[in-house]
Amino acid sequence: MKDELESKKIIGLMSGTSCDSIDAGLCIVYPDLSCKLIQGINYKYPPHIREKIFNLFSGNATVKDVCQMNFAIGKCFANACNILISEHGKPDFIASHGQTIYHFPFDEKLDDISLKSTLQIGESSIIAKETGCMVISNFREADIANGGEGAPLVCFADEKWFKPLKKNIAIQNIGGISNVTVISQEKPTFGFDTGLGNIMIDYCMNKYFNKPYDEDGKVANSGKIQESWLDCLMQDDYYFKNPPKSTGREYFSTAYIENALKFGPKVPEDIIATVTALTAKTIAKAYERFIYPDIDIQEVVVGGGGAYNPALMKFLRHYLPKHIDLKTHEAYGISNNFKEVMAFALLGYCNYYGIPNNLPECTGAYKRVILGKVAN
Amino acid sequence: MKDELESKKIIGLMSGTSCDSIDAGLCIVYPDLSCKLIQGINYKYPPHIREKIFNLFSGNATVKDVCQMNFAIGKCFANACNILISEHGKPDFIASHGQTIYHFPFDEKLDDISLKSTLQIGESSIIAKETGCMVISNFREADIANGGEGAPLVCFADEKWFKPLKKNIAIQNIGGISNVTVISQEKPTFGFDTGLGNIMIDYCMNKYFNKPYDEDGKVANSGKIQESWLDCLMQDDYYFKNPPKSTGREYFSTAYIENALKFGPKVPEDIIATVTALTAKTIAKAYERFIYPDIDIQEVVVGGGGAYNPALMKFLRHYLPKHIDLKTHEAYGISNNFKEVMAFALLGYCNYYGIPNNLPECTGAYKRVILGKVAN
Repeated sequence: MKDELESKKIIGLMSGTSCDSIDAGLCIVYPDLSCKLIQGINYKYPPHIREKIFNLFSGNATVKDVCQMNFAIGKCFANACNILISEHGKPDFIASHGQTIYHFPFDEKLDDISLKSTLQIGESSIIAKETGCMVISNFREADIANGGEGAPLVCFADEKWFKPLKKNIAIQNIGGISNVTVISQEKPTFGFDTGLGNIMIDYCMNKYFNKPYDEDGKVANSGKIQESWLDCLMQDDYYFKNPPKSTGREYFSTAYIENALKFGPKVPEDIIATVTALTAKTIAKAYERFIYPDIDIQEVVVGGGGAYNPALMKFLRHYLPKHIDLKTHEAYGISNNFKEVMAFALLGYCNYYGIPNNLPECTGAYKRVILGKVAN
Repeated sequence: MKDELESKKIIGLMSGTSCDSIDAGLCIVYPDLSCKLIQGINYKYPPHIREKIFNLFSGNATVKDVCQMNFAIGKCFANACNILISEHGKPDFIASHGQTIYHFPFDEKLDDISLKSTLQIGESSIIAKETGCMVISNFREADIANGGEGAPLVCFADEKWFKPLKKNIAIQNIGGISNVTVISQEKPTFGFDTGLGNIMIDYCMNKYFNKPYDEDGKVANSGKIQESWLDCLMQDDYYFKNPPKSTGREYFSTAYIENALKFGPKVPEDIIATVTALTAKTIAKAYERFIYPDIDIQEVVVGGGGAYNPALMKFLRHYLPKHIDLKTHEAYGISNNFKEVMAFALLGYCNYYGIPNNLPECTGAYKRVILGKVAN
């Protein structure tokens, strides 16, 4: 029965590297692998849980913290689902990305055993129990098991949704970390993490202005970019590494940011302006180095929280070549905020029907495999 | 098709609280839920990996360690399977318990969210990829999600295998931690962790004799039990707590043992004799407190590494009432060493066919559910 594809109602769940909240989206995924968002909600972590999640990134967290937070975050994910379920009824199943707490896409070995690994928490058995729905989760592990970096995974959805537009497009997500999917009409889709997204901006907003993020880019727009510091920050090795590559908070850590700030400007507004420019410029530079030599990009489509930061969008426009169109996902009827949950709904749909759902050109895996694990 | 039960070849995988090695057993599970071991092997962790696993229990481990060791242990589990597969061919699937690195069966809350949790690592996607087999794993989480402690799980197998003997039996496993399953012909099967198994004996053998364990109980037999210290150690709160209850290395930790040793005898042989007696006496006391008042036990059947320690068996015989028969699993044709892998093979079989495989009387869960998650 499973062989004939049918439309499925799926709740997609994601909590990104910004760690401020859970995105939950009720979607319909169709047999042609297109996806429609019915309703998306943003569920804030309770304050002490959020603090504990940040602690997981600090280097001070213990195994006990990981054990407990896996279950506690699972309950938060379930709560988010139950808000949607109370309004719309049960979905066919839930597809959960979880909360990444570590990502180690490197080929280090111990006793000749690879340590390449990734860790997403948000216990699927808790989500299954609390919602009464089947849960498909833990998508990244099987990609790493097959030689990939386990990231980026959203490329798979980007290819399904944007390739039919018959253009060469860079789909740029700006979350905590930024990642791009490159859709070409001639060449295979590929993608990689371009580097920093909102992590450093948000950290500095919190540190200097006691605010979680730079609303409407106002602070960045009121400051001045310090070019010399920007140039220094641009020298980080990660930006020069060839794709496939992926990164996260374990690299762009609090310690990393604090160290960088030692060399920064004295005026907080100038710091915000410069780190906002950094995100934009590292994206533009990544395109110059790794995309334009092979592909004539006609359009850049931005999604994620960064798409709502006009200063960031202005800087990006400035650093991109003039002939390239700059749009946001909403121009295509896709929510900037809920695009990733839609993508994980699609990955879940594919797992359910046994359709390979990784893109080796994006993750570096040896082959196409079916990502995700099932809990009932 | 799945509805008609068939015999399945299953590799069961377990790494217990002793953490010295992986037990892998190729089993056949039959539709009547009986289980036959074809071959069991013991796969030693490579030395640095083993050191890292112990570090996970030390309180010094980081999130990065958890992330990396999940994948590295998965590879070790796969290596163990592949030894069996090279000789016997592929099984129908693999059932993996994983390596427990934390167990927190308590009702603490944060922001009104339960922190009750358990953490087993040994990435199932790695096992699946490296063996080419479907893997069913992570059995404990769903029991906790349903209000249980996620332990003990082996009771389910004990009931299937020992209840038909028409006796009242205590099935006593002595691994790192000790746990009992109580089979009564009139009352529901129940079980709990009695407390210490070999953890403290092995720790002291390592500390004072630089050996991993007390071979044939020789050291314990050469020492003298110090009754006053034994009495003190018997006062620990855990032993008085009513079942259902479960425990682990996070409680009976290195710090716990080192603290206890401050008050111990000066002669190392006496230490080994006393801590060996402690395991035996806590088992006997647990029966007195929590079993005999309700059930007239006729027989105790010991399994796990402790069954091979003649000093421990002698002490247990001494502390148990005289009318109770004391046997090991091997009297029933079940390997002392591979009984747990056989049990997890059975739990995997039940997951595959949708048969509930927890026993609420043992774990404290609200209801019978299907434990385990599937990775392809």
